[in-house]
Amino acid sequence: MTRQEFLEQVLSPLGRLTGDEQAAVQRELDRRAPGKDPTATARREADAVHVLSGLFEGKTTGAPLAMVIQNGDQHSSDYDALRYTPRPSHGDYAGFIASQGCQDHRGGGHFSGRLTAPLVAAGAVAKQVLAQRDIWVGAHISGIYGILDRVLDEPEELKALADKPFPVLDDGKGEEMRQAILDAKAEGDSVGGSIECAVVGLSAGLGAPDFGCNVEGIFSQYLFAVPAVKAVGFGDGVGLSYMRGTEANDPFENRDGKVRTKTNHAGGVNGGITNGMPVVFEVTLRPTPSISLPQESVDLRTGEEVEIEIKGRHDPCVVLRAVPVIEAAAALAACEVLGI
Amino acid sequence: MTRQEFLEQVLSPLGRLTGDEQAAVQRELDRRAPGKDPTATARREADAVHVLSGLFEGKTTGAPLAMVIQNGDQHSSDYDALRYTPRPSHGDYAGFIASQGCQDHRGGGHFSGRLTAPLVAAGAVAKQVLAQRDIWVGAHISGIYGILDRVLDEPEELKALADKPFPVLDDGKGEEMRQAILDAKAEGDSVGGSIECAVVGLSAGLGAPDFGCNVEGIFSQYLFAVPAVKAVGFGDGVGLSYMRGTEANDPFENRDGKVRTKTNHAGGVNGGITNGMPVVFEVTLRPTPSISLPQESVDLRTGEEVEIEIKGRHDPCVVLRAVPVIEAAAALAACEVLGI
Amino acid sequence: MTRQEFLEQVLSPLGRLTGDEQAAVQRELDRRAPGKDPTATARREADAVHVLSGLFEGKTTGAPLAMVIQNGDQHSSDYDALRYTPRPSHGDYAGFIASQGCQDHRGGGHFSGRLTAPLVAAGAVAKQVLAQRDIWVGAHISGIYGILDRVLDEPEELKALADKPFPVLDDGKGEEMRQAILDAKAEGDSVGGSIECAVVGLSAGLGAPDFGCNVEGIFSQYLFAVPAVKAVGFGDGVGLSYMRGTEANDPFENRDGKVRTKTNHAGGVNGGITNGMPVVFEVTLRPTPSISLPQESVDLRTGEEVEIEIKGRHDPCVVLRAVPVIEAAAALAACEVLGI
Amino acid sequence: MTRQEFLEQVLSPLGRLTGDEQAAVQRELDRRAPGKDPTATARREADAVHVLSGLFEGKTTGAPLAMVIQNGDQHSSDYDALRYTPRPSHGDYAGFIASQGCQDHRGGGHFSGRLTAPLVAAGAVAKQVLAQRDIWVGAHISGIYGILDRVLDEPEELKALADKPFPVLDDGKGEEMRQAILDAKAEGDSVGGSIECAVVGLSAGLGAPDFGCNVEGIFSQYLFAVPAVKAVGFGDGVGLSYMRGTEANDPFENRDGKVRTKTNHAGGVNGGITNGMPVVFEVTLRPTPSISLPQESVDLRTGEEVEIEIKGRHDPCVVLRAVPVIEAAAALAACEVLGI
Repeated sequence: MTRQEFLEQVLSPLGRLTGDEQAAVQRELDRRAPGKDPTATARREADAVHVLSGLFEGKTTGAPLAMVIQNGDQHSSDYDALRYTPRPSHGDYAGFIASQGCQDHRGGGHFSGRLTAPLVAAGAVAKQVLAQRDIWVGAHISGIYGILDRVLDEPEELKALADKPFPVLDDGKGEEMRQAILDAKAEGDSVGGSIECAVVGLSAGLGAPDFGCNVEGIFSQYLFAVPAVKAVGFGDGVGLSYMRGTEANDPFENRDGKVRTKTNHAGGVNGGITNGMPVVFEVTLRPTPSISLPQESVDLRTGEEVEIEIKGRHDPCVVLRAVPVIEAAAALAACEVLGI
Repeated sequence: MTRQEFLEQVLSPLGRLTGDEQAAVQRELDRRAPGKDPTATARREADAVHVLSGLFEGKTTGAPLAMVIQNGDQHSSDYDALRYTPRPSHGDYAGFIASQGCQDHRGGGHFSGRLTAPLVAAGAVAKQVLAQRDIWVGAHISGIYGILDRVLDEPEELKALADKPFPVLDDGKGEEMRQAILDAKAEGDSVGGSIECAVVGLSAGLGAPDFGCNVEGIFSQYLFAVPAVKAVGFGDGVGLSYMRGTEANDPFENRDGKVRTKTNHAGGVNGGITNGMPVVFEVTLRPTPSISLPQESVDLRTGEEVEIEIKGRHDPCVVLRAVPVIEAAAALAACEVLGI
Repeated sequence: MTRQEFLEQVLSPLGRLTGDEQAAVQRELDRRAPGKDPTATARREADAVHVLSGLFEGKTTGAPLAMVIQNGDQHSSDYDALRYTPRPSHGDYAGFIASQGCQDHRGGGHFSGRLTAPLVAAGAVAKQVLAQRDIWVGAHISGIYGILDRVLDEPEELKALADKPFPVLDDGKGEEMRQAILDAKAEGDSVGGSIECAVVGLSAGLGAPDFGCNVEGIFSQYLFAVPAVKAVGFGDGVGLSYMRGTEANDPFENRDGKVRTKTNHAGGVNGGITNGMPVVFEVTLRPTPSISLPQESVDLRTGEEVEIEIKGRHDPCVVLRAVPVIEAAAALAACEVLGI
Repeated sequence: MTRQEFLEQVLSPLGRLTGDEQAAVQRELDRRAPGKDPTATARREADAVHVLSGLFEGKTTGAPLAMVIQNGDQHSSDYDALRYTPRPSHGDYAGFIASQGCQDHRGGGHFSGRLTAPLVAAGAVAKQVLAQRDIWVGAHISGIYGILDRVLDEPEELKALADKPFPVLDDGKGEEMRQAILDAKAEGDSVGGSIECAVVGLSAGLGAPDFGCNVEGIFSQYLFAVPAVKAVGFGDGVGLSYMRGTEANDPFENRDGKVRTKTNHAGGVNGGITNGMPVVFEVTLRPTPSISLPQESVDLRTGEEVEIEIKGRHDPCVVLRAVPVIEAAAALAACEVLGI
């Protein structure tokens, strides 16, 4: 499903939205904006969203909601040197082949991290739709280069993190993570990390076991469309391969007349269907491929092996700025799961 | 996409298939069949596939290929006691809510591991379609309860494993894994594990960065539809969160006139698009939720908290039997990526 | 969308169905069955539906509802002579090319009118889903070979026709139609005709103007999948090209506190969206291509022009038996419009 | 499928396009532009297309091709009086209900004929894709208010019509049609009509009998999304209900070593699959609902029955301007049929 298609679908029932939707979209975009932290890129991006259609008198109309975010501070010439010498592990080479050589290489083109801005804008709308159903999404940085945040006890803890400049549960660990990022930056290198995210309020019984309607599969479709995401795990994720059934099973209880599980090792999904517990998952983001150290490439015109150096300005770690992006992808996925 | 829809799509171009397709389907089903190893369930399942339509004179016709696998040795009464007392971490409760109480609880119904048999049958057809394009799929058990197989050096190594009763690269590790399974079984418990899989031969340039056409997202849709799969990672997967860009980037080289990468930390996908290297991923399978030890549940009719014991016959570890299932899901995903 | 996929979707919310669903399915199949009228084919078809999965204790479970109808009285050898000499205007040639020569030619294969039996079965389920929402579907033969039934005044009139052996509003006209069919049959020829159908009870506001969600487009997808349908028109259909706006516009009124239109020239759809009036449309069915007179064909092996004669037993007019098929297609379309 | 989604799909393989694509898009838009003929509306619309993304150095890149056409000469206040008093047979009422009262009523909002401009732009791209495969689309006005153009003998005749201001085969009939339009206009009324369209060059064997892949169904999805289209018929269309098999069947012949049919009553499609002949169909367009005579409506705020008069400037007949729109819809449908 494309972003545009999603918007058309998700916005059909939005007629009843009150309040300033555009302001909410802008708030989410500001969370993603670069240039606010020494660990991030020095690029300035205004990220002002402009609505072309689908909004009338402050409410969505059900017609396609078309939003445009113009590019401002872009140094396209930074990219000219790389047009035919693809950067290792970036989308350059794969995109060059897919487009038969007609790829727009400037700024990373279709693969640019810039494309997470419209994703955040769409997610900001989806979050409002979810809020009408008492569903919310929260996330924290769970690890950077092996430095792990403390374990999340209750998803409610995430609510306090949305406005933190560096959203971790344990600020001491956060400082260590920042240092790891700055160390990598100083060496012209980059680091990977992970984000844990929870969608709270989805009722039990959504989804189905099969292809295309499986809850974990639907979330993954959206999450892997976020640049740099290379792994997705629900509940205890890869940890489950080290566990026994007695450790991994979530016993049922009757709490205040409501069936629920005492633990949530399964991350809120059993057999591809929600079980009423928060849907919790962790995504792994690879180290930014754009590093300033010399790297080996091949000139696609001649086949000659060449050494390249990436100029431009790049985040040494995308994890911080990806937090609202992952939340946005999760919000869009939750809307699809709900059949909105 | 449903299995049936997939079949309709995938089979359109199959007219040119020669050879005995049904025999190939049966061979794959036999790989999945239980009762061959002391680590697996004692159930006997014939798993004979019967083609209802879409096959004529040994070739598919392009009409929907409908295949039926009848259930034989089924002890439905084993499940009656559990109808209203859901098994922890199984699909029982989520399915009960989703079906508004009308779920067929016998044998796990729609959530039964039995449903991996038609998946393997569909995958067997997909594998033949891929073979016509010189694409093949292989897999090994990469870990059981923390015991890890050795690292896969070259995907080619997987070719030799298809007929091994316990498909690991290091048979010594395989023996340890089997012992871990038998230990868990002896205690009425179960264990989790992981499978690493490679799809070899996909050309560069397939897929796109967006939702719905992202290669990693498409694979995940199929993989998470396999019961027990809780995490999917491409290339170095979660390991990438512990790495720097210099470690994770795959340098390009010109080998014999062909652009390729020296390493494959990215698992064959950059920016959602194949880069021509093998697509390599690892899935994590949770410990079987069906253990014979007493567990806490709730009677859905009364809300009363109860203790249940699961009778029936269950695999203490589904990883072994899941190997051909993961291959089948990967083959189906590869066909979708190819637009077949 | 495939039949199977539809079933999976439509049946998710079916858990609440009570009563004997299979009996209702069988009743609809019996309406379609041949051999009951001298105007129809002499073939006998038992059309007994057998449910493989998705039904438990008389209710659907939400798992895919797989139904099988076996072929009984089939003279496959009737078709052998035609394997490489396609019948004019039948699907033979197009199907031969599409399947690269691997088509199952027996009984018309994938193009056989037999495939309307599963369509009717699926529609019978859809009708029950619609009935729970007070929506019903009715139809009449509106014309045969230029002999027209009288104009439908109120869709309610259609309710009385469901059990009539020859469902027309004016039985005198019905007799003329039957005679036209028998005349054609006596001459080894066939005749075309039309069916008018109404879906009553759809609320206003369903659908959207765009591709893929347009109500008229959704209905057409299903209707053109019925063999022999070559034209679909909503409301006054092609008659609107002969009209002025003053004649074609439907004035609004407030009847008993409810906004509705005084007339229904638009057939219940404006701008691709339902307006709360019955959705009324007419389909044109071509004369059966299978006639017993000699016809010109080409031998696909040699390119030689040949004369063929179709043996077998064929309906000289498919319109009568198509009435429940068109109702079934409309019921399935209505479910998609409702987002069920 | 949405326009945007289509564009994303269709443009993936476009990398190889040469030539000035934007100019071709503009040429098609100019064919649709109003204000060129006394029979059309007096509105002026610049219809200048602006490409936001997906085009680089004169070629599409495979990334979504986003094109924007700004509204210029719009008298929004013309519409204020009609906000709560829907115009008969326009999308106003259905849209008001669908959007729960949040519809943008200005200029007809989502139902405006203006939205055929982006459709034409998308179609202009699709036409270039088809031209690379030697496939072309042509159309003529086949009737206005009962005045019929002469019968189309060969689709090739349509090639000469693309640049005619009033595209008919018989200019005398064209003059009569124009007079009928001007007569209706003089009386504040409007007239309906029909367009016949051919897609030439599609090979045999495309499509399938089933829902969602049936060629006639795919075309209808696109055609009914064109405002005012109320009927679609392939080949002889509704005329087939007046015919016998001997008249309607298309005999095969071997012409110059190629199997084809001597006639094309079936409009190039048998059993939902192309047979290699031109795909020919006729669409019926209703009289413009926006007439200047007084009409009956209901005030949606109070339920009061009221008389309305539509100010604004409207086409007394949309058929003329719809010709390139129908061609565009057909081009998009042909791309979907080809699986592009």
